[in-house]
Amino acid sequence: MELLARAALTRVLEPGEERGGRWLREHGAVGLIRLLTGPEPEAAVLTGVRPDRLAGYRRRAALADPRRDLALAAAAGGRFVCPGSAEWPTQLDDLADARPVGLWLRGRPDLRTWALRSVAVVGARACTPYGAHMAQTLAAGLAERGWVVVSGAAYGIDGAAHRGALASGGATAAVLACGVDVSYPRGHAGLLGRIAGQGLVLGELPPGSHPTPSRFVLRNRVIAALTRGTVVVEAAHRSGSLVTARRAQQLGRFTMGVPGPATSGLSAGVHELLRGEAVLVSDAAEVVELVGSIGELAPERRGPVLARDLLDRATARVLEALPAGRPADVEELALASGTGTDEVIGRLYELHSLGFVERQGDVWQLSRQTPEARTQTGSARRGGR
Amino acid sequence: MELLARAALTRVLEPGEERGGRWLREHGAVGLIRLLTGPEPEAAVLTGVRPDRLAGYRRRAALADPRRDLALAAAAGGRFVCPGSAEWPTQLDDLADARPVGLWLRGRPDLRTWALRSVAVVGARACTPYGAHMAQTLAAGLAERGWVVVSGAAYGIDGAAHRGALASGGATAAVLACGVDVSYPRGHAGLLGRIAGQGLVLGELPPGSHPTPSRFVLRNRVIAALTRGTVVVEAAHRSGSLVTARRAQQLGRFTMGVPGPATSGLSAGVHELLRGEAVLVSDAAEVVELVGSIGELAPERRGPVLARDLLDRATARVLEALPAGRPADVEELALASGTGTDEVIGRLYELHSLGFVERQGDVWQLSRQTPEARTQTGSARRGGR
Repeated sequence: MELLARAALTRVLEPGEERGGRWLREHGAVGLIRLLTGPEPEAAVLTGVRPDRLAGYRRRAALADPRRDLALAAAAGGRFVCPGSAEWPTQLDDLADARPVGLWLRGRPDLRTWALRSVAVVGARACTPYGAHMAQTLAAGLAERGWVVVSGAAYGIDGAAHRGALASGGATAAVLACGVDVSYPRGHAGLLGRIAGQGLVLGELPPGSHPTPSRFVLRNRVIAALTRGTVVVEAAHRSGSLVTARRAQQLGRFTMGVPGPATSGLSAGVHELLRGEAVLVSDAAEVVELVGSIGELAPERRGPVLARDLLDRATARVLEALPAGRPADVEELALASGTGTDEVIGRLYELHSLGFVERQGDVWQLSRQTPEARTQTGSARRGGR
Repeated sequence: MELLARAALTRVLEPGEERGGRWLREHGAVGLIRLLTGPEPEAAVLTGVRPDRLAGYRRRAALADPRRDLALAAAAGGRFVCPGSAEWPTQLDDLADARPVGLWLRGRPDLRTWALRSVAVVGARACTPYGAHMAQTLAAGLAERGWVVVSGAAYGIDGAAHRGALASGGATAAVLACGVDVSYPRGHAGLLGRIAGQGLVLGELPPGSHPTPSRFVLRNRVIAALTRGTVVVEAAHRSGSLVTARRAQQLGRFTMGVPGPATSGLSAGVHELLRGEAVLVSDAAEVVELVGSIGELAPERRGPVLARDLLDRATARVLEALPAGRPADVEELALASGTGTDEVIGRLYELHSLGFVERQGDVWQLSRQTPEARTQTGSARRGGR
């Protein structure tokens, strides 16, 4: 019921609408749907909103057909997760009343575990070749180090980041400002297909929804909240990427910027960030040094965070396929586990987030340390830097 | 006597030799010369150094001929200033026992007042065209805002900085690791001549001295201490410019860096600084915003720091030549004061440091505010940024 009500509410409330978040907190999802589809005077009194201002919400609530939306999503290989779902990334709760009502997803990996080891790489649409090169290289380096690259699937920096991660056989997630079944921008239809096949495509909007300027801006808060940190590669003054970075900062996430020539207008926004709290980063190692440093969230300091027998079947099969004492590549693991390579990649990143495996370039291996030993060497490594 | 003794000691002690600084503190300059040229056992006891280790100092002290050095300097249009001289820049005292024994100078301007409003612009010898462009543009912008550009006269960034300041009719000072009558590097003989004609060439070493690797390194501490802040334009890892920047930081001066492409090895050292305490700057306005912000040293917060009748004749003549109520350019002021244009530029920068005049692009005008009014608008301007 909760999931069905929340799926319906993604048709009623706009992303990031704090008033809606307050109603949800006060009445619950099921209660809010009942309220908005019940008698008007009662709805007006209980929401504290004048009837004429409530009309749009009531109309949308009356038209919402969550079963049909869930069926549409399922037909496109998608699903819906919401607070309370096992897959819900709880760091989104930091958004308080602006927390998404739920997320529509396409792709096999588990969003919650992926988000634990994720970094956003964002930037200008009309980027320079230098910016595209840096985004691609950074994303590839992050993927090689076992980090999930999150971006917005836009032209320019976003696309280069997704491609860099994909090209190195890595994990990437696209957060959209439209339905996850909508290809926006059109020219990225192929890319979005590859991301959904090998990673995750997600967003707050129900199937078939189209992006609007305000949806782009509000999508950025999800990118900021979902990840451990945001790297801005190129951004002019007053760019949307700076909004993502500042939101990340407000949420206590790491904010990073890639420097560029002082003569480049497309680096001016990044340099503005770097004159504030953001940290200058030149490569993936510097990003990981920063985002990997907070012990509280970092699974590598604790060893596996989940008992082996709590893993779901598909993930456990990939873990069992990993040979003892030597690394293996994705193809070997796909063969050994009887699974497709895209599926294997998704599961490996989950296992990585949970502390079971490590990535070394193109191969994966079992984590060799016990939880205790990991804590010590983890600290030693950090101290040595 | 003090001046003569210190001039002699520039032949005896190497730049930055802290042991020498300690002896100077204990015995005074005259006492130290007497000690080093007197009976050996007494010298050994009073300096606390074994006779064999003292031999080099004693030999150099015996050979020193400060009158001849001063005459040589004077013949080349130079002079010698030391602690206690009216022209001594007291911020060098921050170097404690590594304070220069004295400074040999070529050029008309008053070092002490020039140093009050100076910024160092330093960087790699083998710079990129981008780096040279940034150094030149920054230096021109600083000069246009009435700041003195200090650098080391090396090839690459240093040369570009001096040229940028000269080209915009501005003030620049070169701190050498050799005698001020020695053209090093050879290819900068013409540039050094122009700097001495329009600005200042200075260094710790007596006439005819040649540079050595350690003298280059120790010269950097003078650049760092003399100026309000150091901007590094391009520098590889482990570059000498980073030494200057870190020294500036230790001395409580501002340290700044110009970003460049993350793919450029010549920006890697700068980015390293920017990941620490240094502030990213993209243009002269950002440099001035920073270095102009400390009230204690900034003359613009106090209005003129010297009574008008305490100015020396030549400076007073330029001040008198300035018309009331409108700005004038250097040519007009040269004509009105009966002085050469290079001389006028030097005096104008002194007057600027002392708070009497302001530069606006190519023209100069009397400061319009009383000392009290200046303090208020000065704070308001800073607050509004």
